[in-house]
Amino acid sequence: MDTRPGTSSESGNGGQWAPARGGSPSFLRQVNVLSVLRTVREQGPLSRTDLRRLTSLSRPTINEVLGVLFATGYLIEDEPDIGQRSFRSGPAPRMLRFAAEVGHVCGIDIGAEKILVKLARLDGEVVASVRVATPRLSTPAETIRRVRNAVRIACTEAGIGEVEVRQAAVSTPGIVDPSTGCVFLAPQLRGWEGLRLADRLALQCPVVVENEMHLAVLGERWRGAAKGIDDVVYIGLGVGIGAGVVLGGRLHRGLGGAAGEIGYLPLTVDADAVTGGRGAFETAAGAHALGARAQKLARGRNGGLLRELAGGDPTEVTAATLFAAASAGDAAAATLISDEAKLLAHAIATVALVLAPSVVIIGGGLSRAGALLLDPIQERLPALLPVPPPQVLQSTLGEDAATIGAIYVALQITDDRLYTTVAGGER
Amino acid sequence: MDTRPGTSSESGNGGQWAPARGGSPSFLRQVNVLSVLRTVREQGPLSRTDLRRLTSLSRPTINEVLGVLFATGYLIEDEPDIGQRSFRSGPAPRMLRFAAEVGHVCGIDIGAEKILVKLARLDGEVVASVRVATPRLSTPAETIRRVRNAVRIACTEAGIGEVEVRQAAVSTPGIVDPSTGCVFLAPQLRGWEGLRLADRLALQCPVVVENEMHLAVLGERWRGAAKGIDDVVYIGLGVGIGAGVVLGGRLHRGLGGAAGEIGYLPLTVDADAVTGGRGAFETAAGAHALGARAQKLARGRNGGLLRELAGGDPTEVTAATLFAAASAGDAAAATLISDEAKLLAHAIATVALVLAPSVVIIGGGLSRAGALLLDPIQERLPALLPVPPPQVLQSTLGEDAATIGAIYVALQITDDRLYTTVAGGER
Repeated sequence: MDTRPGTSSESGNGGQWAPARGGSPSFLRQVNVLSVLRTVREQGPLSRTDLRRLTSLSRPTINEVLGVLFATGYLIEDEPDIGQRSFRSGPAPRMLRFAAEVGHVCGIDIGAEKILVKLARLDGEVVASVRVATPRLSTPAETIRRVRNAVRIACTEAGIGEVEVRQAAVSTPGIVDPSTGCVFLAPQLRGWEGLRLADRLALQCPVVVENEMHLAVLGERWRGAAKGIDDVVYIGLGVGIGAGVVLGGRLHRGLGGAAGEIGYLPLTVDADAVTGGRGAFETAAGAHALGARAQKLARGRNGGLLRELAGGDPTEVTAATLFAAASAGDAAAATLISDEAKLLAHAIATVALVLAPSVVIIGGGLSRAGALLLDPIQERLPALLPVPPPQVLQSTLGEDAATIGAIYVALQITDDRLYTTVAGGER
Repeated sequence: MDTRPGTSSESGNGGQWAPARGGSPSFLRQVNVLSVLRTVREQGPLSRTDLRRLTSLSRPTINEVLGVLFATGYLIEDEPDIGQRSFRSGPAPRMLRFAAEVGHVCGIDIGAEKILVKLARLDGEVVASVRVATPRLSTPAETIRRVRNAVRIACTEAGIGEVEVRQAAVSTPGIVDPSTGCVFLAPQLRGWEGLRLADRLALQCPVVVENEMHLAVLGERWRGAAKGIDDVVYIGLGVGIGAGVVLGGRLHRGLGGAAGEIGYLPLTVDADAVTGGRGAFETAAGAHALGARAQKLARGRNGGLLRELAGGDPTEVTAATLFAAASAGDAAAATLISDEAKLLAHAIATVALVLAPSVVIIGGGLSRAGALLLDPIQERLPALLPVPPPQVLQSTLGEDAATIGAIYVALQITDDRLYTTVAGGER
């Protein structure tokens, strides 16, 4: 008998197939089909000989299972690549591989400044990427029209029809209520409060919506700076400030999806933390606040370089100008950045005291400053913590983090569906 | 064939037995043995007829499996209780039950004020409880001598020998380094820093050591105020302040076991958080600070009731005196408590912003104030959070929380060992 008990807990469907009573043929077939699909997917391309060795299944069982899998379209057997094998003796075997090209998923990031749409194959390879600006003060209807348009362009770029997209995942600012799918607390996007985004997008595939920080941390853990790290916090530093939390390798969403709302951290014991929709901490430390402090500096005696970098107009000075001035050796600019680092270290220390993550990833617009901002943060942390501080790393995915995280989530959902379908023997 | 695939992921050993190739008899027997043991343990006492119905195993298989389990001593078959069945017709069947009395575990809490030792049977029923005071400024050797003595007294009380204790779990202040077992950052206990507590205790069974807050949250979730809650934070308010974090039903320890060190939360952006071993937050909001504020009040014009309650001596005023005065309607005492609630709400809001737990349990000495302290905390939270605040509940286990958590951990370890042993067919 070729069943391999114990496979269930390793399978990608989270053990969702109903346990069959006894060693019934249908259950054994399911185990074998999933085992072969998973082996080829993770270790392929493979010859049938490789597959027999890796699965310990008999030749007749392998043949039967492959028949089922070929019919689903998820597995194909390619002719050998003659060139590759020319120095070896014997005929080259045909190779089994997962047909990652039979389906696509879509990752969408809707931000205050940009809409980013990426299409990926079932193996996660990105095959199309479209970026469009979000006009300031655009209405939800206008933003949604732009998203739908960007998805259409991405499909054309990838050479697929929209119906071939199996799942989309959407990143948005704000908290996404898991029971209703409504977006709340998203002052970045006008009219976004209470929006049922998944329904409004009306794409031709299922859509899930998730907070941008929750997706960014998943993205960085999948393909970015936090690969293989089980306890990691992503902190997005832009106009708003928020965090995404992965613990034990799993996203922690929290009550109502509200984990990581560190933009609302109280700066003092007496002050209320919520001021006009914006949090106390992001109001003090976000990109607007830093830009305002830089503009004030630019108008003063020590603001010569800042004014110069902004073409003589202090109102054109932004956080980016400040970082450029500091890079060029401007002492006043460096002092402002050091003050900003102190504010940010306060928030990172707070997160570290509660959670003690191994790694904190810094993303968002301000993270582009790199070592200029991260070094003083890392220097400040030991004074704030009684234990060794977490490693503070710059995001490697940059503005793509949430979109890559959205692709990851869409692939997870597609995978669950794929394994359930294949195990059920249906197409 | 009576195997029930899918049981593996439900079994208590975390799927630790090696997956056998194919449907080998040894693997099938393991599955059946574990299935029967688990069914009787969780749903027993059961008749053999009940067992057949619940496991779908055949009569011969049940008989074979019971033979194995009787030999281990973990399962026994009792004579029917005649009295109980007297109103029913037919002979009363013999009943199978888990022999919880064949082993014991020990939960030990070593605190700044007390040592608490409890013994429990394998079903978690506490059969002995010993409490001794920890003298102020006692040396580690003296404290350890008292712990060992308390364990001995508890065994006598339970009528068992020390060798019958299978596992002990020890609660301690401070951070327990998971790689070395050393205790750090425990200013409450003199000489405790760097102590290898498990080795030093030298009990006659395996010993694990864990931070008191980590155990308290597990205790409250198992038997206390957080039963069945998956995302819960326990906050212990005493001289020191700390937290234990359970997310998705699992304890989150953090890097180096340092999650939950909220006693070090920074109160302002500028101050360093670590002052002479104690954290900034616990220095401002802990029981000593509150007691000092109460003593100051007692010495002043509005301190009449406080002085009276302390027998006329302001230096005898403690936090408990303050709560007594407030209960009696003293306005000045109520104001101090309201200020304290504001400080505590600051920390709870901080934790809620990072984690968004469903429930926060307040334990430790100050929690004895009950609604007097919890009501103003719950009133303050909405001003600090942009989302609905977590429910704030008083600990129901009180000073037993960490000891009950220790019993829980000791039982988990014993269970893993039990299921591994039984599955291996060894005693």
